[in-house]
Amino acid sequence: MIEKNYTAYLIPTSDYHSSEYISDYFKLREFFTGFNGSMGTLLVMQNNAYLWVDGRYFIQAAKQIDDKIITLMKMGTPNTPTLTEFLANNLNPKDTLAFDGKLLNTKTVIDIIKSIKNGINIVNDENIIDSLWPERPKLPFSLLFTLDDFYTGKAYKEKLQQILDKLKENNAEYYLLASLEDQAWLYNLRASDVLHTPVFLAFSLISNNSTILFVDTKKIDINVAKYLENNEIILKPYNEIYNYIKNLKAKNILINYDKVNYALYSIIKNTGISIISKDDPTLLLKAIKNETEIENTKIAHIKDGLCVFRTMNYIKKNYENNDLSELGIGNYIENLRKETEGFIDISFDSICGFNEHGAMMHYKATPDSSSKIKNNGLVLLDSGGHYFEGTTDITRTFSIGKINDKMKIHYTTVLKSVIALSKAIFLKGCTGFNLDALAREPIWQLLIDYKCGTGHGVGNILSVHEGPNNFRWQIRNSNLDSQVLLPGMITTVEPGIYLENKYGIRIENELLCVEKETNEFGTFLGFETITYAPIDLDPIKPSLLTKEEKEWINEYHKMVYEKLRPYLDKTELDALALYTRKI
Amino acid sequence: MIEKNYTAYLIPTSDYHSSEYISDYFKLREFFTGFNGSMGTLLVMQNNAYLWVDGRYFIQAAKQIDDKIITLMKMGTPNTPTLTEFLANNLNPKDTLAFDGKLLNTKTVIDIIKSIKNGINIVNDENIIDSLWPERPKLPFSLLFTLDDFYTGKAYKEKLQQILDKLKENNAEYYLLASLEDQAWLYNLRASDVLHTPVFLAFSLISNNSTILFVDTKKIDINVAKYLENNEIILKPYNEIYNYIKNLKAKNILINYDKVNYALYSIIKNTGISIISKDDPTLLLKAIKNETEIENTKIAHIKDGLCVFRTMNYIKKNYENNDLSELGIGNYIENLRKETEGFIDISFDSICGFNEHGAMMHYKATPDSSSKIKNNGLVLLDSGGHYFEGTTDITRTFSIGKINDKMKIHYTTVLKSVIALSKAIFLKGCTGFNLDALAREPIWQLLIDYKCGTGHGVGNILSVHEGPNNFRWQIRNSNLDSQVLLPGMITTVEPGIYLENKYGIRIENELLCVEKETNEFGTFLGFETITYAPIDLDPIKPSLLTKEEKEWINEYHKMVYEKLRPYLDKTELDALALYTRKI
Repeated sequence: MIEKNYTAYLIPTSDYHSSEYISDYFKLREFFTGFNGSMGTLLVMQNNAYLWVDGRYFIQAAKQIDDKIITLMKMGTPNTPTLTEFLANNLNPKDTLAFDGKLLNTKTVIDIIKSIKNGINIVNDENIIDSLWPERPKLPFSLLFTLDDFYTGKAYKEKLQQILDKLKENNAEYYLLASLEDQAWLYNLRASDVLHTPVFLAFSLISNNSTILFVDTKKIDINVAKYLENNEIILKPYNEIYNYIKNLKAKNILINYDKVNYALYSIIKNTGISIISKDDPTLLLKAIKNETEIENTKIAHIKDGLCVFRTMNYIKKNYENNDLSELGIGNYIENLRKETEGFIDISFDSICGFNEHGAMMHYKATPDSSSKIKNNGLVLLDSGGHYFEGTTDITRTFSIGKINDKMKIHYTTVLKSVIALSKAIFLKGCTGFNLDALAREPIWQLLIDYKCGTGHGVGNILSVHEGPNNFRWQIRNSNLDSQVLLPGMITTVEPGIYLENKYGIRIENELLCVEKETNEFGTFLGFETITYAPIDLDPIKPSLLTKEEKEWINEYHKMVYEKLRPYLDKTELDALALYTRKI
Repeated sequence: MIEKNYTAYLIPTSDYHSSEYISDYFKLREFFTGFNGSMGTLLVMQNNAYLWVDGRYFIQAAKQIDDKIITLMKMGTPNTPTLTEFLANNLNPKDTLAFDGKLLNTKTVIDIIKSIKNGINIVNDENIIDSLWPERPKLPFSLLFTLDDFYTGKAYKEKLQQILDKLKENNAEYYLLASLEDQAWLYNLRASDVLHTPVFLAFSLISNNSTILFVDTKKIDINVAKYLENNEIILKPYNEIYNYIKNLKAKNILINYDKVNYALYSIIKNTGISIISKDDPTLLLKAIKNETEIENTKIAHIKDGLCVFRTMNYIKKNYENNDLSELGIGNYIENLRKETEGFIDISFDSICGFNEHGAMMHYKATPDSSSKIKNNGLVLLDSGGHYFEGTTDITRTFSIGKINDKMKIHYTTVLKSVIALSKAIFLKGCTGFNLDALAREPIWQLLIDYKCGTGHGVGNILSVHEGPNNFRWQIRNSNLDSQVLLPGMITTVEPGIYLENKYGIRIENELLCVEKETNEFGTFLGFETITYAPIDLDPIKPSLLTKEEKEWINEYHKMVYEKLRPYLDKTELDALALYTRKI
């Protein structure tokens, strides 16, 4: 940096597609800081370095970084400037801010440029890092495979037509699609370039005349090659996108500033092609699951519910034997999923936290940290799988031994919270903002809050976190913030209570948005719960539940019993009957 | 219009200050259309005229206008363009759109100009109407009076200092304040220029050096003149503002586009003074009531609760005598308020609707329409008063005779809805959007909706509708849409069920936002109910209420009994005890 006279160099946590989950090749921030959380932004200056992390990681990051070199910036705490504010205050005219423009999305960079003082140099194509990380992993490599229409419910050509219709609406000639999930969805192709997210690194350039897929061609086997050819999808090397765009002749091009990286944006700017800045047309098409996807996803949830039930049974039957551990339970459920027909991958690293470990929302047991699960307490188990039929995400909290009254009150309140949102009925037009408080209110009544959203959209054999639908209460400045809930969207409901150094409680189901009725007052929507696994009744304090809440639990457990029974033998069925008993 | 070659002439429902309630002088739209609802926009073209009204007025407007001359534009219905869309589609280059710029706020006109085609002439200072309305009422005239600090809790000078601090924050030299309520608040002055809204027509120009009040100087008696002089408030004639601004030398001026009229905006634009477009700094200062205002408002609610209780008692004791009517009940409660010490005015026209009339949210009984209140059914009574201690707005629905099970279910559900919001606890940062669904959910569960917000802010001896706080679920495009709720704000909770041609049910209390606790999870806020009048227990179906809801009702009634008992004799106390009995 001194050689090149850079005042500041920015290292985000991202790939070339602004993906939430990234492959090892892109873990630059982790390499330079030692901090291995899933988010974090590093700013290196000539005499200092600063690492921004969010509330989930304050403790972990402080432990992992060298605070003589790096200052920890705790996002959202008083007197901690945001990265943008920091740059606005600390860079002066003639200073140089450098970064690899491929690693930052357009919106982020535009926001930074708007905020900082005039006269600061921006170097956006500089990757000074490669030479500093000799052992850097290679770009991920995995073979693509096709998903049959039997699973996807809609062929590529139909999806393409929907996109072309959207381009027409926007008078767009070209469309550059960078989102990995959206491309996997569009082509009905999957791979495993990103851990537990079955996508592949690619860009797509779409117009009425052609679809070009930029992807490492070595990832294409003969079957996929034929599939692409049959669908008239033109194949070009992954890195060719930059050159191709540079030489493109076009009237205009539609891009999503949240996903297209700043390097590509700069190239387009230089060509003089006019830019139509829009959300990806694929976003809503992908989020509203079709009938086939819905029916298949329900099958995936039966398969997954069996794994969760069997793990619950394993814990309940064996915790007194003194040989259960967090890692052991994580492996146990992972193995059950792996043995399941149609299994592709787990959908994220399993979280199994006993007592105080459960209070860390994103705890991942290591051989060092893994607690024995014994005596008394609460076991929080958050896990999920990708199957050919769909993706799951489920959390259950199980009690072992004796737990105190406060734990029971907290557990029952979290359950009340799940029920309140699950049985909500609402007018079409409502967003997650309108409904989040329904879930939060029972917990707020205890003067407790959980520091995350109440739920997120779930992809279909894609990212387990998928927008634009979600449940949260804080309005931020983004287009996606006001996405109305629509029939076919799948969103988790996962409220919790987390008491530091004590215990964590979370119960998570997936909710399918469905239409209830249209009458003179409007169109009413509601939810169908599509997660099928027992909710532990042992930690419940029944006196806190209303008649309606008890009815909801009994109805839910009746459904779970009916869904799982065909796959169980007598012994297991007895256990399931016990876990789904009427209260 | 033909003479002057105007293509279209726009007549809104407004005064020179974008007030919600307007005095007779400004009822141009009513004069030209015959439609006397509280909102409506008339567009006159050379061969047609169009009247936009909202859902409250579809039926009434259709009855009152001549549909051979005027086309009714039902706002929000499919295929009905908004005024702006209509102008965009129907005006062509070289056409002329004319209006009286004093009657439209800046934002509205800017939005129109942005939307219509280029090359359309705008004539904004034309009032061609005066000659067409020879009998036009005069501008309102009422004497100003001062409110003692004993009632307001804060002297003018303190309020001025808060505003000057805000100007400093915004680097603003001048501040032009047009909102009538905000000026009345600032000066601790009231009058009665607008029916049931104790304000006076005025503009204020504020800077560090001086405060100039532009008001009809004949409205100032010797006491108020002295008060103004003592406070160094310079007095100038109301209409002088336009000339004064024209000749103003200044660096910049802060104005609120929602309140400053377009004529004034145009003048400022022509001076070259730069404009700082902001919400009025007074808005939040006024909405967050101080301790004195809160304590006084509670006294106003005791006075008002006595009137409501006595009216309830009158209905319950006399409906069998066959001489009650909607008009009669409206007069009865109005007279009770008038006899109350400290009474200034009613805060809006009382709404008393029996059975099917209750289903019209803004029904106003006339000698022709007034129903007898007899036999069986539901009486909806929505009314309020201005007292020196504060302003009230309260709705109760009373049953007489026998009502059917469905009415009871609906009444009980509306009450559940009031309770759900009243007992809400929430993190600081929440807006009305976050909480509205808490109230709506019990009613949505019946697949019913009410087509209005759940509640509005209440002014303190000002407009009974006061922003920026409110409860509603639909996000519109406005800065004020995301106002967080803060301690000291007073907002109504008034859910309802309205079945056309059958009956209407509404229960309305006022909620004071209060802090509950600050702990490791954040600052929790909640509400204190400050309306003290019995909620009719007769129409309740107790089996639909949870234990907690019953407790809430009993606690509430205990409070009502305690608040009102000191003012009642033995007979009345017996009645109150009955109405506030435990359930």
